[in-house]
Order: sequence, then C-alpha cells, then structure tokens
Amino acid sequence: MAQKTLNVMFIGDVVGTPGLQMVGRMLKSFISKYHVDFVVCNGENAHHGKGMSLEALNQLLEAGVNVVTGGNHTWSNFNFFDTLKTHPQVLRPLNYPKGTYGKGYAIYKLPNGLGDIAVVNLQGRTFMYSIDCPFRTADWAIKQIKEQGKDKVRHIFVDIHAEATAEKIALGWYLDGKVSAVIGTHTHVPTADERILPKGTGYCTDAGMTGPHNSVIGMQIKSATDRMLYQTPHKYECAEDDVHFSGVLLSMDVASGKTVGIQRIFYPEFDRGVIQG
Amino acid sequence: MAQKTLNVMFIGDVVGTPGLQMVGRMLKSFISKYHVDFVVCNGENAHHGKGMSLEALNQLLEAGVNVVTGGNHTWSNFNFFDTLKTHPQVLRPLNYPKGTYGKGYAIYKLPNGLGDIAVVNLQGRTFMYSIDCPFRTADWAIKQIKEQGKDKVRHIFVDIHAEATAEKIALGWYLDGKVSAVIGTHTHVPTADERILPKGTGYCTDAGMTGPHNSVIGMQIKSATDRMLYQTPHKYECAEDDVHFSGVLLSMDVASGKTVGIQRIFYPEFDRGVIQG
Amino acid sequence: MAQKTLNVMFIGDVVGTPGLQMVGRMLKSFISKYHVDFVVCNGENAHHGKGMSLEALNQLLEAGVNVVTGGNHTWSNFNFFDTLKTHPQVLRPLNYPKGTYGKGYAIYKLPNGLGDIAVVNLQGRTFMYSIDCPFRTADWAIKQIKEQGKDKVRHIFVDIHAEATAEKIALGWYLDGKVSAVIGTHTHVPTADERILPKGTGYCTDAGMTGPHNSVIGMQIKSATDRMLYQTPHKYECAEDDVHFSGVLLSMDVASGKTVGIQRIFYPEFDRGVIQG
Amino acid sequence: MAQKTLNVMFIGDVVGTPGLQMVGRMLKSFISKYHVDFVVCNGENAHHGKGMSLEALNQLLEAGVNVVTGGNHTWSNFNFFDTLKTHPQVLRPLNYPKGTYGKGYAIYKLPNGLGDIAVVNLQGRTFMYSIDCPFRTADWAIKQIKEQGKDKVRHIFVDIHAEATAEKIALGWYLDGKVSAVIGTHTHVPTADERILPKGTGYCTDAGMTGPHNSVIGMQIKSATDRMLYQTPHKYECAEDDVHFSGVLLSMDVASGKTVGIQRIFYPEFDRGVIQG
Ligand SMILES: [Fe+2]
Ligand SMILES: [Fe+2]
Ligand SMILES: [Fe+2]
Ligand SMILES: [Fe+2]
Ligand SMILES: [Fe+2]
Ligand SMILES: [Fe+2]
Ligand SMILES: [Fe+2]
Ligand SMILES: [Fe+2]
Repeated sequence: MAQKTLNVMFIGDVVGTPGLQMVGRMLKSFISKYHVDFVVCNGENAHHGKGMSLEALNQLLEAGVNVVTGGNHTWSNFNFFDTLKTHPQVLRPLNYPKGTYGKGYAIYKLPNGLGDIAVVNLQGRTFMYSIDCPFRTADWAIKQIKEQGKDKVRHIFVDIHAEATAEKIALGWYLDGKVSAVIGTHTHVPTADERILPKGTGYCTDAGMTGPHNSVIGMQIKSATDRMLYQTPHKYECAEDDVHFSGVLLSMDVASGKTVGIQRIFYPEFDRGVIQG
Repeated sequence: MAQKTLNVMFIGDVVGTPGLQMVGRMLKSFISKYHVDFVVCNGENAHHGKGMSLEALNQLLEAGVNVVTGGNHTWSNFNFFDTLKTHPQVLRPLNYPKGTYGKGYAIYKLPNGLGDIAVVNLQGRTFMYSIDCPFRTADWAIKQIKEQGKDKVRHIFVDIHAEATAEKIALGWYLDGKVSAVIGTHTHVPTADERILPKGTGYCTDAGMTGPHNSVIGMQIKSATDRMLYQTPHKYECAEDDVHFSGVLLSMDVASGKTVGIQRIFYPEFDRGVIQG
Repeated sequence: MAQKTLNVMFIGDVVGTPGLQMVGRMLKSFISKYHVDFVVCNGENAHHGKGMSLEALNQLLEAGVNVVTGGNHTWSNFNFFDTLKTHPQVLRPLNYPKGTYGKGYAIYKLPNGLGDIAVVNLQGRTFMYSIDCPFRTADWAIKQIKEQGKDKVRHIFVDIHAEATAEKIALGWYLDGKVSAVIGTHTHVPTADERILPKGTGYCTDAGMTGPHNSVIGMQIKSATDRMLYQTPHKYECAEDDVHFSGVLLSMDVASGKTVGIQRIFYPEFDRGVIQG
Repeated sequence: MAQKTLNVMFIGDVVGTPGLQMVGRMLKSFISKYHVDFVVCNGENAHHGKGMSLEALNQLLEAGVNVVTGGNHTWSNFNFFDTLKTHPQVLRPLNYPKGTYGKGYAIYKLPNGLGDIAVVNLQGRTFMYSIDCPFRTADWAIKQIKEQGKDKVRHIFVDIHAEATAEKIALGWYLDGKVSAVIGTHTHVPTADERILPKGTGYCTDAGMTGPHNSVIGMQIKSATDRMLYQTPHKYECAEDDVHFSGVLLSMDVASGKTVGIQRIFYPEFDRGVIQG
C-alpha cells in the first residue's frame, strides 16, 4: 500500500560542536522512532556557534540531515562561501539581494516514491538586515517551484529565520494553504505555539536551539551577560553544557501536501518539578 | 497543617476586550483547579490592544487578578497615568528612568498566612527603549525588598518584558537563586522552555498572549501584514477571534521561596492534528 | 544667446507653519537674486511638523516651488494620500514597495527652452524602514528616465532622505557621473560637506531644515528632551521661534547636466561671535 | 596684560594613518595661526579606522593634542584597554555603565595661567548602545567638576558622540549656560550649524572627520557600498585618499567660561565650483 503521509523533521539552530554531536547521537533514533522521511536542519551556528563550515555540513549530512538552511550567521565564516555556492544541500535565506552567494530554495527528491519536496529559506527584516521582502519573495519562490517542479512538488517547507514574532506569524498566515509548513528559527528558544493553520499549513514560531542550554542562546553566560551589563564587545565563546535537541516534527498528507500533524521534539526535557495542589 | 507551597499564576499579555473576557471567564476555574494563591497578569495591551485603562484594571481585579504588570505599551493610553500613579495594584517596568510615573515593584500580602510576595516588573533594552539597566535595577529592587520586607518576603516574582530571548535568558541566569521566578512577556508567543534553573528560580522566556490568536500578536492580520508589505503606517485594529488563555503556573516552596514546579497553561489547545507513523 | 547653466534651488525639510511662512517670505527673492530656474523642496514636515497636506502643498507651489519631495513622514497625515496619488508635483520616496500610493520620480519641463529635468526621491534604510534598495532603485529610475525622456532629460536631481551619513555618501559616489546632484534630507541639520564629486555630481549630505531652530529638529525643546529623559511618549508640538531658511543652490551645465557650482543657503546666519586672536 | 580669551581647537574623528598624518602635518600651524591654547581630539578611529592604540595616542600627543576623546569604537581594539585605564590624557564616553574601563571626564591645567578646563566625553543612545542617560550623566559630571575644581574650572568642553541629530541638539539646549561648549562627533560629516546658544554655550552638531574623504566615512568606497548592496559583512578597509582636516575652533571668555566665537575649520576646502548667475 502506498505511503499516505510524509514525515518531515526540522531541527532548530544547531550550535557548535555540542549541537553537532547531539544531532549525530540522536537523529537516527528519531528518524527510526518517528518514521521520518526527510530532515531539514538550520545550521547557521554549527561552526563554533557562528556560521557554517564544510566540516560541520558533512557531519550534519552523515547524521541523516537532507538539507541545511541558514540565516544571518551564514555569512559569519568567510571560508564557507565556496561551499555555499556549489553544494546542492545548503541553502541561505532566499531574500538576500541579487548578487549574494548561494541559493535560497531548491527542490529535492523524496524517498519511497513520495515525489519531490521544495525547501525555502527566508529571513525576516524587523530588527535585522534590510534585505528583500520575505512575503513577496515567498510568492516568487512558490511560483518558480510550481513551474519547475510541475506536479511532482506537492510539499513546500519554509524556514523563516527572524527575530520578531509578528513577522513570523504574519508570514504563516500569508502562506497558509500555499505551503506545507512555515517554521521559524533564529531566537534559539522553542515556542509552544505549534499548530495547523486553517488551510492546512503547519506553523511554529521557533523550533528552538539544538545545542548547549547552560548558556545564553548558545553563548557562555558570563560573556553574554557582560555584553549587556557593559554594552561593550566581549568575545563570543560557545557554551558546552546541558545540550538538548530541539526541533519540530510534521506529518504531511502526500496527496495534498497539507500538514496533518505537528509536534515539538525537545530532548531531554528540562527539569520542571511538579505543581503542588 | 500549614500550607507548604504557594501557587502563583502568571497571565501573559492580555489583549483587548477578547482577552479581558477570557480572563473573566476562565481565571476563577483555574484558581480553583490549581489551588492558585496569587495571580499576576501583564496588562499592557488590555485597553483595546494598546495600553491600560481603569476600566480594564477593574475587570482584571474582579476576575481574580492580584497585581497587574506593564511594559512599553503602558504609556500608550495617556488617560491611565493618574491610575498608574495612585493604584497599589498596578506596576510598570521599574527600570524606566527616575521621574517616570508609577512604581515598578511592590510587596503584597499573601493569603492563608503565607507571608508576603514581592512583584518586580522589568523591561529589556535590546530592540527597545534605552532605559536603565534591568540587571542592576533587579539587584537594587531585591535589596530594597529585603530591607523593607524583613523576613516576611520569601517570594519574589519578576516579569521581564523584553523582545530579545538573549536578554531574558541572561536575566534568568543572573537572578537564579535570588528570586522565585523570572517570567518573560512582550512577544505574545508562549515559549516552551519553562524550567527550574539550578538554584531554584522558575524561568520561562515568554508567557504568551491571552487574547485573539486569529491575528498577528493580537492585531488584525491584514493591517499587520500591510505594515510589513508596505512599511507604512496602518491603523492598529484589535483582532477578535480564536481567543486563548496563556500563562504560567508556579509552585513555590513557602519556606525557601524556591520554585518546585512550573507548568504552562494554554487554553484551549491549538489544533495540532496527529503525527502519523 | 542661449542660457548655459541651469540654476536649481533645493530647500531642506520645511517644518510646519513657521517653515511654510519662511519659504513664502524668502523664496522669490532668492529666485531673483540667484537666477533660480527650478525649485525642489522637501515637504515631509510641512503639515504642522508631521506629514503633508493639500493646503501646505498649495502654499509651497504659490511660493515658487516646482516639485515637493517627501520622506518617512509623508505617511503621517492620512488625509494627504489622495493628493499623493493624483498631484503631478508631489513625490514620495521611490523605493517604497510596489503598491504604495504616489510616485517617486517624474520628469518636468524646464523654463527658457532648457529641456527637461527629472527629480528622483529616494529613502535610506539604515535606522529606518526596510524598503527597497535605494541603489538599485536609483539605477532603475535612471534607466526609465533615459528611455522616457530621450535626449531632452540631461538633468537628474536626487533627494536622498536618510538618517545615516554613510548611506548618503555611498549613494553619492554610486551615482557620481550618472545624475546631476544627490542632496540629502531628514536629519534637519545642514552639513558643510557640499562638493562636486570627480565625475560632476553635486553632493551634500543634508540640506538642513527650513523652520524653527529654537527647537530640537523642529519640535518644542521640552517635549523632545522629555522623550529622551524618560523614554516615554510625549506629544509632538511644533516649535515656532528662530526660523531659518536652509537649502542648497546648484548650477548645472545645460549641455552635460553636470554640476559646476554648489553653495549652501542658510538665512539668516546663526550667531557665531568672533574668534579672538 | 592678562589673556582674556581661551582658544580651544576640537578635532573631529581622526581616521587611520591618513588622519594621524594630517594632524601631524597641520595642527601646529593651526595652533600658531589661531593662537590655540588647548586641543581636544576625538580618536576613536585613529587605529587603522577602528579603535585606538598607544602608538596612535602618542602620535596625537606629539602633534600637539592635549586630550583624546573616544566613542563606540574605543572598544574595537582590545589591546588599548590598559592604556585606557592608566593614561591621563585619554577619555572614553563617561556614560558607559559602572565597571567599564577608563574614565569619561577629567580636569586639565591650562597654559598661561588660564586656570583649568574640564573635558567631558558623552555618548548618545539613539540608534546606539543602551548606556546610561547622557543628560543625567552630564549633570552629575558638572557637579563633580565644580566640587573638585573649585573656582579654577571655568571652562567645560563636552564631546557628544552620537548618531541622531535630535539627541545632540537636545543636549546642547540642556547644557546651554552650564558648559562652555557642546560639540558632536561620530557621523564623520561636519555640520554647518555651529552657533552660540543664547546662554553662551558654543554648539555644533558634528565636527566632521579628519581623514580620507575619498571614502564612505573613512572606509573604502567599494566595501562600504557592498555592505549596503548585499547586507552581508564585507571587511573594513581604511581609505587613503583626499585627506582633509576637520574641526571646530572656539574662543571662550576666560572670566565667564562662555563661548564668544565659534568657527569650523575644514582644510583643504572641497571643490565647489562657482554658482553662475
Ligand atoms: Fe541561530
Ligand atoms: Fe540567526
Ligand atoms: Fe504586549
Ligand atoms: Fe510590550
Ligand atoms: Fe524631516
Ligand atoms: Fe524624515
Ligand atoms: Fe568615528
Ligand atoms: Fe563613533
């Protein structure tokens, strides 16, 4: 019997070696446990917390990741630019201006005769760089995908890398019914608002950080706090401890491309004690 | 037998009449169900989505709220300034500069002989206004509370109203062990990172929004999206539909003031479908 | 004998009734004194300090202005939007996204058989709204102007409305040799860097404010200072006193369109006392 | 006969080796020509365009500078922090938070029995870091100076390093009559609004840049423009050509400390051609 749903795992910003190791350690068991068909992972912080590297990319691919998306930190490691230009499994936000290295969307073949999936990487502008409009760019990408992919692309996954919740939510509504899922990245904190929007798009404001949580969004606590206390530069140092895997799992209907199930994956769980009553 | 834990409910940014009605409809049942002793509620958007009003304040107090905190939108309704100056149950972020109306922390008597609780309202600065340092202001407030409250104030609750996850997380670590809880507001999206930090402080980056979720953080979708599409002003109009209650429930040890249980409350749940497998 | 140079007067942001009155009182004498052929004026603050109005527009046109440019405050007065759509002599920054009311460049007939002049209004993005790229938009506009205007448009005047000096200067260099002049607005302070760039483009970072200088960029001193002291909203109130005219005068070669003379006009001069020696 | 006025030269942001060489080449002739008694110089960009160094400091002092002020770029060269802590002639903005290296004001002995002068370095917050309030910090510094300096400090010079014109102008009005002069830095463009405010304070929004003007505020044109075109990082490279000296000269009454003459110094002048008429 033909498989009726496609299961997609999205992994939130992987931070540094601790994050890479966690993906290496856990991803295959999650793929098996949840029958995951395709894995997308945001890697903008995989290279020691800032940017990407070929080595980090290879580690992610070996761990089972199919496509690596990026964000503002994609540009932090100049040595990665060549890989960005040539490697088919790496994306950077599509709405960087014309002339920027790399590509922002691509169509990938799914296993098991499930057809194709398009992955689109976008970046917000509120409190961030003044790049092209993510809304109009999304419209353009969908049109391209439909033209290029013909009937085979029923699934479109969007990683919206943005700071402001309003911008991500507005994009979710804007794309509801036009894409399979809109999942946010960049804040490094998982949000609890995963849902299926009325027209069938899976949405979550942020997939959270896969990396060291004894930290301030991946950075050692003292350096991060000193930046705020003194408002002067303090060297970025990647944290190491309390590593968690953070992502979002989606089941998409193969026939329609719509999301029929969405669930956050955070492992291991934080200590929450017990509410007394 | 003396009660050993104090249960505190914190309600995330209440937006407009829909949010006020939801608090009015649900809070008492939650108080009963979870044995809540004390309720703090962020009200910066209670007055039609922007600012506070005496009417909204009274509705919240009648619904069972004990203290109403604020944020950047506290200043959006000029008519509320008198109430801000005089009403004992209203706070605004403490780290607004000297000379600003209102107060930013206060000590309140708990029921059932549980002693006193201090509530401190702070605001972040990243991507926000250049007000006083929230870290140093927190230290100052704790010192004041200890001096004023003597042995009776074992519980300190902090609402950190901020945009950037890094700033909220850094404050959580900075205050771990010094206060009972640090819970964030302002982004209107609940985060799934509620936890008990190593030294006993309950922490959650954002308590989310109590209000209409068929919206962009409470605003009608079209107006909000138009602001982003055209980068020009579009009138704020409060949304109305898909109203949810969003907050965080904490159990604190009465003897030590430490948090022993933390749980998000989001009601009703979003539609998440079912993961296939 | 045919006139060999075109004299263009550009008037910096006109603020409120005091600014409008100053233009009405002085412009005609400047036109006469300096043999001005064409007058462009930034009017984004003409309507009581915020936005434009049909009444303010008519006052400027009667005073001798030929074209009124805008900026971020163009959108502050909703009542002006119809005029923006229909009136041939009003521009708003061209690089607002597609779908925005009004137009951002136009070609105007010059007097005395001097051919045509194009006026292009652009806005920066650093510390401002995330609109389209002003550099690429300028290229596009120049191409349109060349196509539409054929040989008759030898002069192109650019008002770059921006906050950051770096963005304005970069645009000046980018357009050197492609347009007759790039003059900045928005900061309300005249800069002393007027110059002719190597390829013949007249450049000045800011043309300054025509309006009340007993103020903080046109606003009453106390309100403006209170905003900074308290970081809370304080009502905008337009100042009234110490009104000065501030602009830039350019002589352009009629045959080539290049600038051959540039001079700031600030009237009356500020009190500067005397350096002792 | 006793000297009745004190002449103070303030040099705007010195950028890189070209800027240092220009100061070395010209300052002594200006000191002689204008009878300058005291020289203050903003050096935040002296070290290859970003930050300060001991070597750059020594070059400035040898050239005739008495005090070197700073700004946001003071922190760009970590190797300078020791000098910042110990060297009496180096200042950094005073309103950086408590615990920051270095000092933000000092009292210096004037030559020729003219008494003492205090130099205060402040930084704005609009579009910059969230440091302490520059207005309140200025009040505090003036109080300290009066207490420490007794009757001998009649002159107070303020360098306000800030982005927004509104913040600098507001500070000028706020300090009018309380200090001898408020001169701005940071934008690297000289403003033409030098004036004597009603109560005797010399004011100018920006003293401009002493450095290479075939550049974008000191940076090579291509790198600077690429940053704006692509919104990605491009290496800072200091420009080299078209070096100008930019500063402000003030005559202050020795008895009252008030400014009696203010004049911009920009050398050599830019090419402005000739207005035709
Ligand atoms: Fe990230
Ligand atoms: Fe990011
Ligand atoms: Fe809010
Ligand atoms: Fe808020
Ligand atoms: Fe303006
Ligand atoms: Fe403006
Ligand atoms: Fe500088
Ligand atoms: Fe600076």
